[in-house]
Formats: sequence, C-alpha cells, structure tokens
Amino acid sequence: MKTIGTAKKERQPLYEDVAYRLSHMVDEGTFRPGEKVPSIRAMSHRFQVSINTVKTAYGMLEDRRVIEARPQSGYYVCARLPALPREPDERRPLLNAAAVEAGEMVSRIMRDVNDPGRVQFGAAIPDPALLPSEKLGRIMASELRRSPDHGTGYAMGNGSQKLRNQIARHMLKAGVTLAPDEILITSGATEAVFLAMKVLCRPGDTVVTGAPVYFNFLQMFRELGLKVLEVPSSPVDGIHLDALERALSRNRVSVCLQVTNFNNPLGVSLSEEKKKGLVALLKRYRVPLVEDDINGDIAFDGIRPGVCKAHDESGLVILCSSFSKTLAPGYRMGWMAAGRFLERVRRLKMVTSLATASPTQLAVAEFLANGGYEHHLRRLRRTCAERVAAMGESVGTFFPEGTRVTRPKGGFTLWVEMPETVDSMKLYSALESKGITVAPGGLFSTGDNFRNYLRLNAAAFTPTTQWALEAVGEAARRLV
Amino acid sequence: MKTIGTAKKERQPLYEDVAYRLSHMVDEGTFRPGEKVPSIRAMSHRFQVSINTVKTAYGMLEDRRVIEARPQSGYYVCARLPALPREPDERRPLLNAAAVEAGEMVSRIMRDVNDPGRVQFGAAIPDPALLPSEKLGRIMASELRRSPDHGTGYAMGNGSQKLRNQIARHMLKAGVTLAPDEILITSGATEAVFLAMKVLCRPGDTVVTGAPVYFNFLQMFRELGLKVLEVPSSPVDGIHLDALERALSRNRVSVCLQVTNFNNPLGVSLSEEKKKGLVALLKRYRVPLVEDDINGDIAFDGIRPGVCKAHDESGLVILCSSFSKTLAPGYRMGWMAAGRFLERVRRLKMVTSLATASPTQLAVAEFLANGGYEHHLRRLRRTCAERVAAMGESVGTFFPEGTRVTRPKGGFTLWVEMPETVDSMKLYSALESKGITVAPGGLFSTGDNFRNYLRLNAAAFTPTTQWALEAVGEAARRLV
Repeated sequence: MKTIGTAKKERQPLYEDVAYRLSHMVDEGTFRPGEKVPSIRAMSHRFQVSINTVKTAYGMLEDRRVIEARPQSGYYVCARLPALPREPDERRPLLNAAAVEAGEMVSRIMRDVNDPGRVQFGAAIPDPALLPSEKLGRIMASELRRSPDHGTGYAMGNGSQKLRNQIARHMLKAGVTLAPDEILITSGATEAVFLAMKVLCRPGDTVVTGAPVYFNFLQMFRELGLKVLEVPSSPVDGIHLDALERALSRNRVSVCLQVTNFNNPLGVSLSEEKKKGLVALLKRYRVPLVEDDINGDIAFDGIRPGVCKAHDESGLVILCSSFSKTLAPGYRMGWMAAGRFLERVRRLKMVTSLATASPTQLAVAEFLANGGYEHHLRRLRRTCAERVAAMGESVGTFFPEGTRVTRPKGGFTLWVEMPETVDSMKLYSALESKGITVAPGGLFSTGDNFRNYLRLNAAAFTPTTQWALEAVGEAARRLV
Repeated sequence: MKTIGTAKKERQPLYEDVAYRLSHMVDEGTFRPGEKVPSIRAMSHRFQVSINTVKTAYGMLEDRRVIEARPQSGYYVCARLPALPREPDERRPLLNAAAVEAGEMVSRIMRDVNDPGRVQFGAAIPDPALLPSEKLGRIMASELRRSPDHGTGYAMGNGSQKLRNQIARHMLKAGVTLAPDEILITSGATEAVFLAMKVLCRPGDTVVTGAPVYFNFLQMFRELGLKVLEVPSSPVDGIHLDALERALSRNRVSVCLQVTNFNNPLGVSLSEEKKKGLVALLKRYRVPLVEDDINGDIAFDGIRPGVCKAHDESGLVILCSSFSKTLAPGYRMGWMAAGRFLERVRRLKMVTSLATASPTQLAVAEFLANGGYEHHLRRLRRTCAERVAAMGESVGTFFPEGTRVTRPKGGFTLWVEMPETVDSMKLYSALESKGITVAPGGLFSTGDNFRNYLRLNAAAFTPTTQWALEAVGEAARRLV
C-alpha cells in the first residue's frame, strides 16, 4: 500500500494533497460508506490549511464520487460502488498458443474503432477533447519552420536528442535515472514492445505475463510464434508473484511482459515492494522483463508511481512507454530503455522501420520542454479520475445484478465482471448495430476465463455517451 | 530496349522529348564519342520543332555530359565515361547466411550517416537542398489546423484514405491500377518490405534476390533468420533470369525480393519484357515477389517506368515504395500493395507498430494532391541526372586506372568497380578521418564478390563536395 511520506511525489497543489488524504482514509475504512466525514472547517483546522483549500479538495472528491454533499447536513462517504471483480482462482497458469479466433475479433474491433460514428468504449484511446491537439499542431508547425531541414531528414541512431533528454528528465519523477543515450525512440510503445520481444524470443519460446493481458500483446505473441503462460493477476494488487515463481520454476521461460502501472485491462498497479520483488524474482531466474508503463503519467492522485526499471541493476529490464495515452495516439511517439539489449534492439529497428518520423519527434520534444506537459497532465488526470468514477458508478446502476467492477487509481480502463451467463462476444455483436463498441473479456486471454468480462474505456464516458452505457447494460441484462 | 512510341510516357515538355531522342541515338551508337551531332538549326528542321526547343534540349544534354559545345564549331558527343563494371561471372548463385561482420559495418555507417559534419557519399539519401522541405512543412501546418483532431488521432486500418487515393492515381503512370483499399500505408518502404518478408517467410527459409543487394535488406534477412540465395545481376540489364530459374529449380525458395527500377546499388532497371518474364517465372514456381520501387519516380528521361505488379494476375506480387527518395526521408512515409497477402500484412502491422504517424500522412497526401509533385519531380530528375553524369565522369578522372562505373538512367547511386587490389573496407576506414563516407561493396553481398566495389551517392555530389570525391580517388589510388 502506498502511504504519504514513503511514496515519491511531485510537487502538487495543496488541495490535491488534502483530497488524497481523505480518499485514503475512505479507502482504508476510517470513514465507511454512508458515514459523515469531518466538516470543511474541522478539516481545515486538522490539516492546518485554508477553508478554500479544503473546499476545492471536497469538490474534487465529489467529482470522483468519493463523497457527496447532503444539503443542510454536510459531506458523506458515497454509497459503495459495485463489488470488485473476484480474485482469480488459484488454479495453475495456462500454457497455450494464442487462439486464432481472437485475431479476427481484434481485427474487427480495430476496424470498428476506426469508425468515428461509433461510441468507443472498446478501445483504450484517450478522449480527443482532452488532448492538447491544437497546441501540439502549432508547436510542430513552429518547430518545422525552425529546423534547418524542416523535419525532412532522418532522425537516425536513437532518435531526437532533445526528446531523449526530455524523457530522461521526466522519468526522474518515476524514480528512475536514465541516460538519454540509453533511450531509443520508437513508433509508439507497440513498436518498443515488439522490438523487445523479437530480440528476446525465438519462435516456439514461452513468454510469461499476468492475465488478463492486453489483447494486442496476445496477437503479437501469435505473430512471433510464442507460447504464452498466463499468471493470474488480482484486480487489487496485480500479478501473483508466487504463481509466477511456480511458473518460472516449472517452465523454460524466455521473457516476462508486464504492464506495471494502471495495468491494461485491470487498472491495477504493482506496489513498490512488489515491483522490487518482481525484478528480484526474474533476476533469480535470469528472465528479462519487458515493462510497459504507458499509463504511469495518469495517476489520479498526482503521485507518479515508480517503475521496475528503477530496481534493475543487471540491465535485464526493458522499459517501454509512449505519449499515446497522454498527448497524441496518432503521433506514434514511443520510447524504450533497453538496458543490455540496446544495441540489438537498435539494429532490429534499422531493418524494421529504419527510423521514427522526425516531425512528431520535434513536436513532442518541444511540448515536453516548454509546452506545459505537467499542467496538461493535471487536467487529464482529474478528468480521467472523474470519468472512471462516474462510469464505475453507472455500471452499478445499469448492468445486471451481480456485476462487479474495478476501482483503478490511474489510466482510464475499467474491467467489468458480469454474471457468468453473459457472453461478452455475444454482447459485442448485439451492440454493433447500435454503433457502440466494447472490448470482450475473451480477447484478454488465450483461455476461456473471461468470457463474461468486459473492458470499458472510461475516457469516452461523458454526458453525451451515457445513453450508450445504458444500452450496454440493457443488452447485458438481456443476455443473463 | 525502350523506344519512343512503345514506352508509356507522361505528357512532357517537347525539349525533353528532343533531348531523349538525341541521347538515345548516342546510346545506340548513331553518334559516337568525339563525333559531331547535327546543328541546332538542322535538328530543328529534322524534328519540326522551334530553334529554342532544340537549344533547351542541347543545354540539358550538356548538363548531363552527353554532348559538349566546342566554340565556333558546334556540338560533339562527349568522350566516353569509364567502362561499365564487368558482367558478373557465370558462377552459380551463392547460398549463405548473411555475415555478422556486415552488421557492425552497417551500424557504423548508419551512425556516420547521422553525422551532419560528413560528406555523405555512403548513404542513398537525397540532397536535402533538392527536397521541397519548407513547402511540406507549410502544408503540414495547414493540414494540422484544418484537421478536426489536428492529426493526433490514429490513422487505423490501411492509413489515410486521401493519401491512398493519391498513390493509386499516381501509380497509373507506372501502368498499374491499384484500388486505394489494396494499399497499406507504412513507415517507409523499409517497414513495407519487412512486413512482407515476415509474412512470407519463417526462420530457416530461403530468399532469392539479385546481387549486389541493398545492404539493409541483408541485415533484415539476418534478423529474420533467412538464408539468402544471391543471383548474379548485370549492370546493364539486371537480374539474370536463367540464373534465377536455375536457383528456383534447385532450391526451395520462399520469396524473391527485387528492386526493379533504378536498382540499389546497380542503378539498372528491368525492361518491361524482363519484368513480365520475372513475374511469369516466379508464378510458375509459386514464389511471391516483393518488388521494391522506391526510385521509380526518378527516371532521368521523365518516362515513369512500369512495375512488375502491373503484370501480376495472381496476387503474388507485393509492391513496396515510399516518398523517402523524392520528398522527405524523415517523414517515414511508405506504402505497399500486398495483393493476396494484404490481410496478413495488416494484422502484422497492428502488432509491430499499430499505425503509421498521422501528421506526415496528412502532409504527403496534400502535397500529392495540390503541392505540385510532378513539377517537383521534374526538377529533381534533372538535377539527379546532372549529378550522376558529373560524378561518373569525375570517378573517371580521379579514381585509379581501370576503375569502371555504372550509367544509371534514374535514381542517384553509382556502382563503382575499382581495380581488384583495392579493398573498399580499408578505403572506408581511410576516409573516416577525412569526414567522408562511402558504401563499401562488401556490404552488398554475403559473399566476397564485391570487395573492390563502392556505392556512391551522386545526390551528394556538388561543387562543394567535389574535393571529397578527389580525396576518395586519391585514397583508392594509394590502395592499389
């Protein structure tokens, strides 16, 4: 558990600190659903902050559905959200080749996702309205004018030096010290993870990962001819390390792939202790870790979580990330810190795409340097927090009795467990004609464990799409 | 042989037509080196065109070193360039895994190529001064302003519809009818070729290709675990089809990869007949062809050559190209028409890079639609023709006795055969301290056949870099 004081945090407004403390107390059960929380005045006295600071904090917590105001009475802890999804069975991990059907489903979903006419609950894409698109465009235009070759030359080697400097500086907040020369710019985190997996594995090898697992990774394993060993992950604290150890001790594993912060789809982060434990365990078995950290910047409490790479002393961790969730998916701007595998990864990139596009590198580098990335992140985090809370609550309202939902503290995906009889593939088809996409749970495993699950994109949940969630719930109720 | 009348051609200025006819007569030996060609007045009468048209044509031919003016006397055919490189031995094709040393050399060269302080004869990169960089930048800025999401959204599926429409329209000039939906946008031709090879081959498979072969392809084969069968190619008419047939009949081959127009490094194009023959031969053996056409737009005579894809009735040809040689290497803007393999290639791209960057797609699409691409190409072709001619002539002047050089009719690379004692790897090292790069011939084969060869980038040959070519020649003379 993260507590104030021990966790690294960036300087943040005082009201966020107050909001964090109170929501922490709610999480810990100090104040329980339906109970009254201290008045604004009492809180101001207790934390030695101004009345206005507490007011702002309480306002934020209302937005996030942690507390609610009752007229003439004060603030109360909101009624509980639906229960958390169940902990995974303690059954042994699965050893399977990724199923072919999933590939077709993924292609179909990806096509649907390209359709601007649909409500996109199915893709983990940020709401375009939350991105600094216009500003990025202006910055790119100005950088192109300033650049001697107007961005038409190759960004060879590791990619833009300025961008790598900025990334190294930014990642200090995650407690990791990276030299700019350790960083390689890639076409999104997808290319970074692909390069890492390709360098670390040969066809027939086995990759171990927490399940449920982001479906495009399963497709990647399939294309690379890999077998996948799925280790059960808890919606509360992530991958089970003892199950992972059992898997490692009984199988010859080439690599472990894990989204360590605000995991896709569970939304869960590994605690700092667990990150350390994961690195140590893998080191013992000499298994490299491909760490995906694409959501690390979207921590609702504003405290940038750490990364496994920070505990990597042997160069066995390849950290992959991107700006696709925070700035511009279409810029395809990702990066990786490949440890001892850097040279091999760089060579592989030379034959797969030669280099990453230059204009987008210029734009993102300048945005990080002078565009107010931190300021932008504050707004993005707050909005994602609100939407995640609101969507989780609406799932409780509209979905069939017995539906459970995660409580992510970052990112913007929800993982929904529906009653066992609801087949989410059928639900997908039922929703297709309504112009709504969801991501069926079956995509997130090679086994048959998540047939009644869904991943929802809370970033797309706004007053204008609320009708669509109602429609999803109604369709699900009809499938019970 | 291409002749006027039978070849497809775009509408072009009359003077280019006249220049083409005269240079054709020189090629055919109608007028031989040192002989006088008809006067401007006589030519005007003969072709029924104006005096000014002939004057312009003669000026162009002077620039290209085809003819020269002698004061008070008239125009004469220039002295011969150095002889052509020798035809390859009729030895049997090689079957080899790509050598590891080449990988390190390629990495070193690629690093050197990133160094703006060097004279870049080693990379096949267009001269930045010849690219419409500023205009592209302005177009991108304006497209980003106009686009609802300012280019931050994913260009999913096959990529920008507008760009694919423009490519389909443009490729009509190459005699091939492509539906926009057959086209997939990629991160440069490199990604296109990589995706094609990855879909068509498994590790241990054999690829057949004409030799010498672009070194980054050899590196790609190595990363994919492929064996390569190198079929001798003539500097005059390209890959030997009978040698190819022998290779196909004696080996189990998964794919043939070939640059069909203004080949890298030989500069040679396959005639239309040979293109047809290649497609028919491969079809007989059911071997897919990956056709790389990156230089097709840079035909010095302005007549866009055809592509093998135009003769493909069975969907076995995957045509790959890009705008890296004509517009902007750093935009990483390529495409492929993958025939019957489209769906598999699209799925593979989803796991390797998800999508191609959007802003650069917007810019190139609009440049093709309204930016004057044809106009730009005319200037680019002329300048490349001049530089190729001038560099070839200078090789004759500065290089050791017995050096031979190709006479490409498009693109901008020269293939130089030096006396057998000159080791081009040693030459590379000798030039490194002088800040000059060349591409040693050894990189272009897994065998030891091109140790005394070089590829030179004529696009980088200008009055300000002439000293560097002198230095290359001098260093080579010292190695004889």
